[in-house]
Amino acid sequence: MPASPFPPDATLADVGEFPLIDALQEVFEQGEHVLIGPGDDAAVLRIRTGHVVVSTDLMVEQRHFRREWADAADVGVRAAAQNLSDINAMGGTATSLTIGLAVPADLPAQWVLDFARGFAEECAKVGASVVGGDLTRSDTLVVAVTVLGACTVAPVVRSGAAPGDLVAIAGRQGWAAGGLAVLGRGFRSPRVLVEAYRRPEPPYAEGVVAAEAGATAMIDVSDGLIADALHVAEASEVSIDIRRDAFEVPEPLHAVGAALGADPMQFILGGGDDHPLLACFARKKDVPKGWTVIGEVSEPGEEGPRVTVDGFDYEGPTGWTHF
Amino acid sequence: MPASPFPPDATLADVGEFPLIDALQEVFEQGEHVLIGPGDDAAVLRIRTGHVVVSTDLMVEQRHFRREWADAADVGVRAAAQNLSDINAMGGTATSLTIGLAVPADLPAQWVLDFARGFAEECAKVGASVVGGDLTRSDTLVVAVTVLGACTVAPVVRSGAAPGDLVAIAGRQGWAAGGLAVLGRGFRSPRVLVEAYRRPEPPYAEGVVAAEAGATAMIDVSDGLIADALHVAEASEVSIDIRRDAFEVPEPLHAVGAALGADPMQFILGGGDDHPLLACFARKKDVPKGWTVIGEVSEPGEEGPRVTVDGFDYEGPTGWTHF
Repeated sequence: MPASPFPPDATLADVGEFPLIDALQEVFEQGEHVLIGPGDDAAVLRIRTGHVVVSTDLMVEQRHFRREWADAADVGVRAAAQNLSDINAMGGTATSLTIGLAVPADLPAQWVLDFARGFAEECAKVGASVVGGDLTRSDTLVVAVTVLGACTVAPVVRSGAAPGDLVAIAGRQGWAAGGLAVLGRGFRSPRVLVEAYRRPEPPYAEGVVAAEAGATAMIDVSDGLIADALHVAEASEVSIDIRRDAFEVPEPLHAVGAALGADPMQFILGGGDDHPLLACFARKKDVPKGWTVIGEVSEPGEEGPRVTVDGFDYEGPTGWTHF
Repeated sequence: MPASPFPPDATLADVGEFPLIDALQEVFEQGEHVLIGPGDDAAVLRIRTGHVVVSTDLMVEQRHFRREWADAADVGVRAAAQNLSDINAMGGTATSLTIGLAVPADLPAQWVLDFARGFAEECAKVGASVVGGDLTRSDTLVVAVTVLGACTVAPVVRSGAAPGDLVAIAGRQGWAAGGLAVLGRGFRSPRVLVEAYRRPEPPYAEGVVAAEAGATAMIDVSDGLIADALHVAEASEVSIDIRRDAFEVPEPLHAVGAALGADPMQFILGGGDDHPLLACFARKKDVPKGWTVIGEVSEPGEEGPRVTVDGFDYEGPTGWTHF
């Protein structure tokens, strides 16, 4: 890790906006598609595909992350991952991101640099560049990321699922929720779950794979499996049934369930933050290797689209409530 | 103005995230370049120019706006304007925007709808569409906007100014700062200045005009005239001298200066928020009609690039300090 240009205890107020922005620009390498990078009124990017895929996400301290639960680089990784995952969920590849940071004046400048390094590290996994941003003071620490990307095949939307489709998932699910539950009780283990929360591992290669395989609908699981399946069901005007026995509960989730007196399936069915992909496929042979079929699409009932588990309404927490 | 779908006193906590997002989507009309609009994991936009110009800005309540000084629609207009202006400053045309809103749970849902309507109204001036966003809870109200655009000629950067260039401005300058000074003292007049602060009128047509006229460097004045001229000077490694007598001080600024015991030129030289364009041109005949020459570019001094006023260092406030 490169040396910091600032004293270790220097705050943003000590350092000032522009010196910190200069230091941040050193962190972010620019891809060859970046015609004009950070530092001007706007960045300019070469677009070869005739279209751009764009998404925005906010992370608010205490709500989406806690500095005591994850170090700055981890928060950077998570902020990048959840945005890169949105492009993945369209069947695309992320190319460029902007970061807006609204930060308390007493935040260590080093925190921002470490955040940026974690962010850049995650972006490097898919070859994306941080091309611009904004930095300002705020009593609440807010991270606002916008990601741009491209698709080589038609983007996969949420609204294309049809009765008879199979529902499949790629990537781990429930691990981050297990880690979060552990952290929320003041524990730091099982380490593998805590790390899953701190550094999600979205299946970045699988979005394109699913799109090429003819996925009829796709979403990344960020709010919760049931909640996000419901987004697909509502957009597609279908119902979805998920089978518990499709999931192999990993050992550490059993351990957390036992320790907290909880059904480990609740992390899988209700948890977000792992950013696996949930996609629908018309035929079993379309489901790509490495994906697990977890349910089926049917006509919506009389009360409209819904998501059931083993044929019944799910009574557990279904995911993230924003308000 | 359309009727609100929510009771007038309903807060965001009462209404919930998704119903409010549904209502917001009604506000934003989509241009024909929007292949997939809001509501999926990402939006998809048609790009005909082979490139995209992108910029991000944050606005934090109490720091960049106050709800008692501007109503929600005005804040929406300002948020849109300052972002559209960044594309203008590259010589481009904005096409698409995303909005991230981190808002207190007790904020009236109507405030968010009115904000969105003001934002959409400003975007309509240049034909741009709001294609996506995010909404979450935060103790501090933060607005994070990303704007995408295109250039029909080569983008104009900050770094192209050369000794001998003329410095010119398009659009009003100092009006918003005068309005802000008035509001800061608890007054509401001169009305024209207060309105200039609440609803800036960036010269959206002039960015392209300047680019086509061969502007060597360009920036929009958002931090302050001297501060932003210094951004150009530093990026171009030149010095800039600005002439006071190039400015005609408008009558309402004289009035505010007299009332507050301030030199009205300080609003012009130090003020931001009006978003005029500052550009450099190699020859007098390149300066487009409607632009005013206000200074000249010279070799940097021994101490490097600087901005002077009538040949001397300017002692007044030079612009916005972010930390």
